[in-house]
Amino acid sequence: MSEIKVNGQKRLVIVTGRAHPDLAHDIAKHLNTEVVHTDARTFANGEIYARYDESVRGCDAFVIQSHTTPINEWLMEQLIMVDALKRASAKRITVVSPFYPYARQDKKGRGREPISARLVADLYKAAGADRIMSVDLHAAQIQGFFDGPVDHLFAMPVLLKHFQAILDPATLTVVSPDMGRVRVADIWSDKLGAPLAIIHKRRDPKIANQVSVHEIVGEVAGRTCLIVDDLIDTGRTIAKAAEALKKAGARNVVVAATHAVFSDPATELLQSEFIDSVVVTDTLPLPMEKRFPKLTILPIAPLIATAIDAVFNDGSVTSMFDGAA
Amino acid sequence: MSEIKVNGQKRLVIVTGRAHPDLAHDIAKHLNTEVVHTDARTFANGEIYARYDESVRGCDAFVIQSHTTPINEWLMEQLIMVDALKRASAKRITVVSPFYPYARQDKKGRGREPISARLVADLYKAAGADRIMSVDLHAAQIQGFFDGPVDHLFAMPVLLKHFQAILDPATLTVVSPDMGRVRVADIWSDKLGAPLAIIHKRRDPKIANQVSVHEIVGEVAGRTCLIVDDLIDTGRTIAKAAEALKKAGARNVVVAATHAVFSDPATELLQSEFIDSVVVTDTLPLPMEKRFPKLTILPIAPLIATAIDAVFNDGSVTSMFDGAA
Amino acid sequence: MSEIKVNGQKRLVIVTGRAHPDLAHDIAKHLNTEVVHTDARTFANGEIYARYDESVRGCDAFVIQSHTTPINEWLMEQLIMVDALKRASAKRITVVSPFYPYARQDKKGRGREPISARLVADLYKAAGADRIMSVDLHAAQIQGFFDGPVDHLFAMPVLLKHFQAILDPATLTVVSPDMGRVRVADIWSDKLGAPLAIIHKRRDPKIANQVSVHEIVGEVAGRTCLIVDDLIDTGRTIAKAAEALKKAGARNVVVAATHAVFSDPATELLQSEFIDSVVVTDTLPLPMEKRFPKLTILPIAPLIATAIDAVFNDGSVTSMFDGAA
Amino acid sequence: MSEIKVNGQKRLVIVTGRAHPDLAHDIAKHLNTEVVHTDARTFANGEIYARYDESVRGCDAFVIQSHTTPINEWLMEQLIMVDALKRASAKRITVVSPFYPYARQDKKGRGREPISARLVADLYKAAGADRIMSVDLHAAQIQGFFDGPVDHLFAMPVLLKHFQAILDPATLTVVSPDMGRVRVADIWSDKLGAPLAIIHKRRDPKIANQVSVHEIVGEVAGRTCLIVDDLIDTGRTIAKAAEALKKAGARNVVVAATHAVFSDPATELLQSEFIDSVVVTDTLPLPMEKRFPKLTILPIAPLIATAIDAVFNDGSVTSMFDGAA
Amino acid sequence: MSEIKVNGQKRLVIVTGRAHPDLAHDIAKHLNTEVVHTDARTFANGEIYARYDESVRGCDAFVIQSHTTPINEWLMEQLIMVDALKRASAKRITVVSPFYPYARQDKKGRGREPISARLVADLYKAAGADRIMSVDLHAAQIQGFFDGPVDHLFAMPVLLKHFQAILDPATLTVVSPDMGRVRVADIWSDKLGAPLAIIHKRRDPKIANQVSVHEIVGEVAGRTCLIVDDLIDTGRTIAKAAEALKKAGARNVVVAATHAVFSDPATELLQSEFIDSVVVTDTLPLPMEKRFPKLTILPIAPLIATAIDAVFNDGSVTSMFDGAA
Amino acid sequence: MSEIKVNGQKRLVIVTGRAHPDLAHDIAKHLNTEVVHTDARTFANGEIYARYDESVRGCDAFVIQSHTTPINEWLMEQLIMVDALKRASAKRITVVSPFYPYARQDKKGRGREPISARLVADLYKAAGADRIMSVDLHAAQIQGFFDGPVDHLFAMPVLLKHFQAILDPATLTVVSPDMGRVRVADIWSDKLGAPLAIIHKRRDPKIANQVSVHEIVGEVAGRTCLIVDDLIDTGRTIAKAAEALKKAGARNVVVAATHAVFSDPATELLQSEFIDSVVVTDTLPLPMEKRFPKLTILPIAPLIATAIDAVFNDGSVTSMFDGAA
Repeated sequence: MSEIKVNGQKRLVIVTGRAHPDLAHDIAKHLNTEVVHTDARTFANGEIYARYDESVRGCDAFVIQSHTTPINEWLMEQLIMVDALKRASAKRITVVSPFYPYARQDKKGRGREPISARLVADLYKAAGADRIMSVDLHAAQIQGFFDGPVDHLFAMPVLLKHFQAILDPATLTVVSPDMGRVRVADIWSDKLGAPLAIIHKRRDPKIANQVSVHEIVGEVAGRTCLIVDDLIDTGRTIAKAAEALKKAGARNVVVAATHAVFSDPATELLQSEFIDSVVVTDTLPLPMEKRFPKLTILPIAPLIATAIDAVFNDGSVTSMFDGAA
Repeated sequence: MSEIKVNGQKRLVIVTGRAHPDLAHDIAKHLNTEVVHTDARTFANGEIYARYDESVRGCDAFVIQSHTTPINEWLMEQLIMVDALKRASAKRITVVSPFYPYARQDKKGRGREPISARLVADLYKAAGADRIMSVDLHAAQIQGFFDGPVDHLFAMPVLLKHFQAILDPATLTVVSPDMGRVRVADIWSDKLGAPLAIIHKRRDPKIANQVSVHEIVGEVAGRTCLIVDDLIDTGRTIAKAAEALKKAGARNVVVAATHAVFSDPATELLQSEFIDSVVVTDTLPLPMEKRFPKLTILPIAPLIATAIDAVFNDGSVTSMFDGAA
Repeated sequence: MSEIKVNGQKRLVIVTGRAHPDLAHDIAKHLNTEVVHTDARTFANGEIYARYDESVRGCDAFVIQSHTTPINEWLMEQLIMVDALKRASAKRITVVSPFYPYARQDKKGRGREPISARLVADLYKAAGADRIMSVDLHAAQIQGFFDGPVDHLFAMPVLLKHFQAILDPATLTVVSPDMGRVRVADIWSDKLGAPLAIIHKRRDPKIANQVSVHEIVGEVAGRTCLIVDDLIDTGRTIAKAAEALKKAGARNVVVAATHAVFSDPATELLQSEFIDSVVVTDTLPLPMEKRFPKLTILPIAPLIATAIDAVFNDGSVTSMFDGAA
Repeated sequence: MSEIKVNGQKRLVIVTGRAHPDLAHDIAKHLNTEVVHTDARTFANGEIYARYDESVRGCDAFVIQSHTTPINEWLMEQLIMVDALKRASAKRITVVSPFYPYARQDKKGRGREPISARLVADLYKAAGADRIMSVDLHAAQIQGFFDGPVDHLFAMPVLLKHFQAILDPATLTVVSPDMGRVRVADIWSDKLGAPLAIIHKRRDPKIANQVSVHEIVGEVAGRTCLIVDDLIDTGRTIAKAAEALKKAGARNVVVAATHAVFSDPATELLQSEFIDSVVVTDTLPLPMEKRFPKLTILPIAPLIATAIDAVFNDGSVTSMFDGAA
Repeated sequence: MSEIKVNGQKRLVIVTGRAHPDLAHDIAKHLNTEVVHTDARTFANGEIYARYDESVRGCDAFVIQSHTTPINEWLMEQLIMVDALKRASAKRITVVSPFYPYARQDKKGRGREPISARLVADLYKAAGADRIMSVDLHAAQIQGFFDGPVDHLFAMPVLLKHFQAILDPATLTVVSPDMGRVRVADIWSDKLGAPLAIIHKRRDPKIANQVSVHEIVGEVAGRTCLIVDDLIDTGRTIAKAAEALKKAGARNVVVAATHAVFSDPATELLQSEFIDSVVVTDTLPLPMEKRFPKLTILPIAPLIATAIDAVFNDGSVTSMFDGAA
Repeated sequence: MSEIKVNGQKRLVIVTGRAHPDLAHDIAKHLNTEVVHTDARTFANGEIYARYDESVRGCDAFVIQSHTTPINEWLMEQLIMVDALKRASAKRITVVSPFYPYARQDKKGRGREPISARLVADLYKAAGADRIMSVDLHAAQIQGFFDGPVDHLFAMPVLLKHFQAILDPATLTVVSPDMGRVRVADIWSDKLGAPLAIIHKRRDPKIANQVSVHEIVGEVAGRTCLIVDDLIDTGRTIAKAAEALKKAGARNVVVAATHAVFSDPATELLQSEFIDSVVVTDTLPLPMEKRFPKLTILPIAPLIATAIDAVFNDGSVTSMFDGAA
């Protein structure tokens, strides 16, 4: 007899970069497993080194990294981790990047610009990633930048559940903070059964060199306004929107976003008197000094853990989201 | 002496598929050249054959095709033409697809969907295309679907020039026909110095099973309304928007779009009493039976010819558009 | 414990394009399964959309399509279906194309021609296909156009079984209708133990501008002549061959071919008085209006089902054919 | 001023492997240039080393190798030479392989066979070749094995010119030595205006275990028979065909082939009493001990030099052959 | 129910080229299996043919070849075998090349040289190899030449075990035969707890045109000197080193190397009076006429078998070597 | 006439990242050109943006970056710049990385490690780089990590010229600071006509747990010792070597290295009393606070400018270095 046969087995391995290890440990806990330890270090000249403490041969690996500042460090660490998995004979490698790096550079707005979001997809591919998992991509088209499966998760169920318990649709208005996010606000409006308002920045033609006024379109006076966005970076747009809403008579201003980038001076701006509360998820780590009393952080780990479980066991990720898109 | 040296020469070659040869001939004329003749045929069983009548060795080739119905035939013809160029040693092959095929399938809205716009980019690459040139992509992110240069042209200068001569900003309102096109309308509003209005389709919560009402946000009564969109397919959205605008007191309703897809029943709907005129370009061929008195067709050939000239002579395509994006 | 292990499972999924769904359902029936339903549509402007109704994550998928007219539509639909499977994390994707599209354009006969059969292999690869399964390739070299496994099935056992039951080798002659198919006829001759005849088209040097005469080489008078070919397109070659055979004294003329392309005027020509019967398989759908009394259609589904079963269960496809090549 | 501009120049470089340097020097002479010297060596353990004596940066390189025994040595040497050119920044690399290696293994005749002709194309690609030039491919489909331009040259004009001067069509018959070469013989028949005969090997059903008889189809008695083939390997098929022809009354038997592989015992067999003369080209080197009085060797260098000149100067290679295919 | 599920199985298949079949059979024996028979032949013109006698569909295949003279033949045979496996639907293909071909051409020492060791990795990839397994690479960087997993085995445990039983560290000195192998000798020195000596070839500045003297750095007088190297090719360096050591007072000179290339005149030189014994492994076949009384050949099959078992069963190859690198 | 012909032109464009702009400006100056300005920025969340101020269409671009701390930032910036060039239709893109990032992670020393130097080559390729130019690679094998031309420059001529003017070979000894750099020191020894010494770190077997002693092999007493290395990182190895040399009676200790990484505490350690002077090049920027009186910095720009000129004008880079390797 010239062959040996054995039953095939699948083995799930979770590894994490150093940007936000708590998230990975939370995910692993929800999956009833543990993160495989990585010996990761940064040398004196800034080069990163990573090595796994256990064999990963033949495994179905998920490489979790959270792309917070310094974002290029964490991206490079993740690429190095993928390379090490590839060379160590992992069977399949899924990059888990809850906040997709460089998502906002998704097209050439002008000549001679890069499309860095595509570049990131190419770098993942070059390193050896077979799949990508991410949450609330800035533009859904980024799925098409990768030549392979992309599991696009939506944080909306997590956020909706939170708000449905505390907000009354009868007095609620969903607000898009600018023209670019109208589509997202539209879906929220539909889900919550609440009307929509839009804030439109435009140049005032009557005053020369005036950059813009914030025009509110829709009913906001006396209502609870829920500003929705995929991410909060410096918080400037949100803060100005909140101010405009309050000045237009809004009773409460609540802010919801998936990704708490919170670059300076976000923490300061979001504590503005015009904002009553801010709700985000922990796709990005938030150090204590960036947190404040009116901030609520919802855990994203259960969502990601459910998706990893579905991917590993060939279940449906789509069925986790009914109608969200 | 063991080598031969000669001065290098660049040679421009324009070829065209059979979907819209007039456009290619117009472009060639603007470039002071002629289209290289292709012996293209469709066999009885539907297979397409293409062969060039002249040597194309070493040339800088531009393969013009217009993706009108039957769109898959014309796409396949273009791919076959690219393959023939590659095997005939063309030096560089640029696919010129003024209306990018499958542009609207640019993301997975639901699970188990294709991203056909990315597939098209992959098919161009597989056939041997080095570059893509297109006009007014439905989503600018499609540029990132191709692993190489994409010359993204804007028809706006062509359309703007037409309207600036005939419309008075003082009585004009730019209208986005739905939430998804707000950003384009915003740019038009800025360019024309006219205010913006938006048409918002939404379910009326007071009436069960009612699909939607068309709500107008912005000033339209007594004004000339310019509805802008990248393409007109069946014309249903545009027709309903026009009706809503007229019912809200608009004096005139003018429609502007780059791509005249005009699937049935577009020609009928666009002749509605609520629409005063329609202006499109000829990126797609419009047979006589789809034309009507209120329709103006602006030629796109000068724009594409200028871009091809810039590409061939290593000039700047970007500088053709100042600020448009 | 830092890992989760489960036993691996393999899952077979059959999907079909809209060109010839009956074939796919027959194949599925032979496999004791059902075709996974695909929501496939053609939009007004000719673009195709396809989405699977069930999760296909991790499956071993077979995408069946029959490349009949309009052949480019069906090819594009199949590519879109492959893209959707790839992005939905199918584990392995086999394209099942019983009649390989563009098989006859398998080389550059002249300069500046495409090699469309290679292009098709490249398009399958670009879309995400891992393997190809096809029946009776026009040239066996097409296997080498794809960078991966090609399961090349032979319909000969199906056809042979039919003829062995009804034809007597003692009075039979196998006929090649032209020079290009001599090799196939040679194998049939060997399998049936019957002599071979060849029909040779050539210019008659005695008459100017005369295109060709049909010269018969071999014994045909008083015999049953079995003309064998891989496909029947317009039927012209076959009809002329039959006429020549009957005029040379053949008692019966029987035609056998795998692929019934039947482009016009095939149905008419094949009902010629010189042809006694025609036998084909259903690799391509034959609408009622293309069928006629003397036509016999043998089912190809059992052959394909057996091959899919062998591929799925890592059995041998080769052993299905002993000596056929 | 932030840039430097210079006029581009093209530079032709010819290099050669060690299998048949005379051919390369002949080609270079026809191009009025010299072969760039390569320091090529085989180390004691069989590894090959190659290095160019002059800079090849930016050149248009043609790597000539003749795939005679030991064929794998010469293929590997050519691949190493291509790698060295790629890493030395050659601008374009064309592999010139007059006799394409492994051309006869162009399909899977049985399961679990390689398609070595495709493998060779892949190896050329992997090493860095941009283009292939070859003479009289065993199957024209091999062009489709390479993902890039293939210049397929035909030796027929060289051979035809020779025979047209010495043979009289009136008494000439073109003979295909077996079923597989009928198509080539058909073209010769057409070009020379002479009738065709075919030699058909088949099992004699009357005698058990009898391998085959050589049946002649067509007029040969009293005529000059020109057996044509693309290559002569061991010469067995040719010798048996010649014997059968002479026994059937042929007056003269002349053999024409492009590639003189001449594996043992070809030299002996071709000197058979049944063969009057043999004409080949020098695509492969023929050592003195393999030559014999009745053998004529026509130079292939002028043909290849003309093709290289056309490729280098972007002329047409196709126009070198009118109607040959 | 629209799907079929079965439990996955893994199947190990070992095949071998013709260079050193004994090694493959030894490996198979250690794995309690048999080599799958390959019908491998070399045709008269030097082309190689290979076909497997059993189905290999879905298997985990290991293609063992030993790269001895004629090295290019055996490399090509291995590539052909990989191609056949790929086209026969093997699931994973690991190339087992105990002595990596062209390992010493691992960089460009001068301009216009190839990097043949990288070329070999590219050829393996092009043919279809997923993984490489090798023993004692000449430079560990060769791992980085392949875009996939490389299992780099070390023969040191095999050799060490042999020497630890027969040599006394107290009287032992480990010797590097030249500057390039100092690092390897350093590890041996560490493992054996014995001091290090280095032989330094350098030009004698006092004598014009004198090529080099062999200078010994370290204590060797009265000691057993163990010269260690990764391979022995012609044996010249080793023989000169041994002579220098003996002349410097060494009591014994023992030579250890993994790969016995033994090009002429190695066998003669290694029987020099200055060498007391030579120990190698059988990564390369050693014909009887190259063996001599003082030579010991240690079997490498157990090491490779253990590694194949680990790869097949997703165990750890790394844990086979503690600290060796 | 169906074509347009113009003479080809080549255009050189130099761009630079923000790590070490002075180096790029020096290089441009030596080339009599200017750096094309890049609008490069780092956003608040750490994402990098880059855009060229002038058209780069069709140019021969060189992207200069110096990989100092923070190394991942500068690598990512360079990749983004390459992506922008590719999408802006640059004709050829050469990455100029004088100090190759992650060069020391060039092999798997242990299981489950990455090969980051290969990863970097893959990332350059994925971004769109056609070529790489670098100075004194840590291992020459890194050339083989990139699938394309690598111009490997040597700083030795720059350093040698400096030392030949100030050091007397008669009293000079070249010193390798550890076993891994012996080969480099050997070349220096040969070039300078001075003897070699080696510093060998090893465990002292007489003292338990003692990590290592620094043993000097070769003549150093009363001599000027030139320690040569490719790079100085933290300076620990160099400082210990210098101390050992001085304690062994060396008269002077001079240190030469190409790349001044100077991670902490290099600046402090290199000012040790045991070191008399340190000579480096400016492949990496050295801020004022890292400089010290005994440090000499030689400019590398002339060397790189000469190489860029040779690449642009298809001259020979190799001829810049005679015998250095």
